[in-house]
Amino acid sequence: MNEMLEYGKEVLARQPFSVLLGAELTKFEPGMAELSLVVEEKLKQQHGFVHGGVVSYLADNCLTYVGGSVLGDVVTSEYKINYVRPAMGDRLVAKATVVSAGKQQAVCHCRVFCISEGEEKLVAVAQGTINKIKQPV
Amino acid sequence: MNEMLEYGKEVLARQPFSVLLGAELTKFEPGMAELSLVVEEKLKQQHGFVHGGVVSYLADNCLTYVGGSVLGDVVTSEYKINYVRPAMGDRLVAKATVVSAGKQQAVCHCRVFCISEGEEKLVAVAQGTINKIKQPV
Amino acid sequence: MNEMLEYGKEVLARQPFSVLLGAELTKFEPGMAELSLVVEEKLKQQHGFVHGGVVSYLADNCLTYVGGSVLGDVVTSEYKINYVRPAMGDRLVAKATVVSAGKQQAVCHCRVFCISEGEEKLVAVAQGTINKIKQPV
Amino acid sequence: MNEMLEYGKEVLARQPFSVLLGAELTKFEPGMAELSLVVEEKLKQQHGFVHGGVVSYLADNCLTYVGGSVLGDVVTSEYKINYVRPAMGDRLVAKATVVSAGKQQAVCHCRVFCISEGEEKLVAVAQGTINKIKQPV
Repeated sequence: MNEMLEYGKEVLARQPFSVLLGAELTKFEPGMAELSLVVEEKLKQQHGFVHGGVVSYLADNCLTYVGGSVLGDVVTSEYKINYVRPAMGDRLVAKATVVSAGKQQAVCHCRVFCISEGEEKLVAVAQGTINKIKQPV
Repeated sequence: MNEMLEYGKEVLARQPFSVLLGAELTKFEPGMAELSLVVEEKLKQQHGFVHGGVVSYLADNCLTYVGGSVLGDVVTSEYKINYVRPAMGDRLVAKATVVSAGKQQAVCHCRVFCISEGEEKLVAVAQGTINKIKQPV
Repeated sequence: MNEMLEYGKEVLARQPFSVLLGAELTKFEPGMAELSLVVEEKLKQQHGFVHGGVVSYLADNCLTYVGGSVLGDVVTSEYKINYVRPAMGDRLVAKATVVSAGKQQAVCHCRVFCISEGEEKLVAVAQGTINKIKQPV
Repeated sequence: MNEMLEYGKEVLARQPFSVLLGAELTKFEPGMAELSLVVEEKLKQQHGFVHGGVVSYLADNCLTYVGGSVLGDVVTSEYKINYVRPAMGDRLVAKATVVSAGKQQAVCHCRVFCISEGEEKLVAVAQGTINKIKQPV
């Protein structure tokens, strides 16, 4: 495993909320990040689908990672998400890319898929702004 | 407690993810909803603040509730959130209102506050679209 | 007329696109801005309503003004708009407020109304981020 | 010129605001649309760049077209735009694609570029929801 991915995994392990949800960082390269989790009962809403809040968490955190992949220490300033299909299946995976980056700020995209019997289906798309923080808070 | 709030609480209790996060519905009237949770260690990120994903969950779910307060069975189709301050303190509370509602769709606003020693501070604002579903999924 | 509003009007007069659309600044105070225009044939789409692009322009520019009312020289970094009703009538007016402002950035809201025979109806709501620019571009 | 593009151009010619801005539809196929305009003085703001409202118009209208390319008669319900660079140059072009489409609604992306001496630079990215209208308004 490369150093950058290893570092990203360490950061994720220090986020209690990410640990609670079982998130795993599966790709972390300059301009690309992938974050996934296993669909468990505790992540669902009342109709048996994955709760929208879980999908949002995954998009938000993956956007932060991909922004951080080019800017260093960052925070998500804002994002917008469109849910396009109820999330179900075995696993959710978020895949984010950098659309445009300056020194202080990056605009990034993220797609979230649910995986069921090996088939990926798009469940949400997000677009947001990631900002560099001067010193780690 | 009025019937509408009681019904809203029952629905929340059937969302395993909301139970996992400890969310409580504290207001549910036509055009208004309030959702809150106690800040626990498990909801934080690596710097000791509440994870953005928790703030998003609260805004998203509160938007869904407020849309449902005027439309019935609904889903959040999309929303946008701006984080304006790191979330810390004892409790988070989301307060949502309906901006405009038709028969099939409502546009709603939500503000999320953190409460520390009785003082409320704004941590995020969200705006989104809630859509009626023809029959409960 | 107060100095701040006068200054704001001078800036608007130097925006050829705002002049083309006939925009007028009717309020410009710290934390509040109002921008309006008369509905003319040239601002419409194929069904006789005001073109969405005009509504967006008004929201975008009013957000920039209100951010500038507390930050000085600014640009709109991003915004999101929900159209809630077709825009028609005699006049459009956008009203923006600051939700939260730091030294470098402000998060602002804007509502756009159409006015017909003295009655105001909401046509769109927007939320966006306004950033200070170090020196006027 | 194919029939679909020809039809799209006819619709555009019936939008007085699009005619005022000089917009041209250069691609219109199922799932893809391109809308462009020549940068003229009247489209600028006070610093000599193309006004953000023009960039927004182009993104908004291109999103509507691409949604219409798969749904028929449509309106843009909402969108979000991030400006990533001041728009200048000879021409602006918006390129939109469908991310996900159902029977009633499509979620679409759009990128807006400015072209200067043959070189394209990204100036904005947008994401929005396009809804089918039951009968032409």
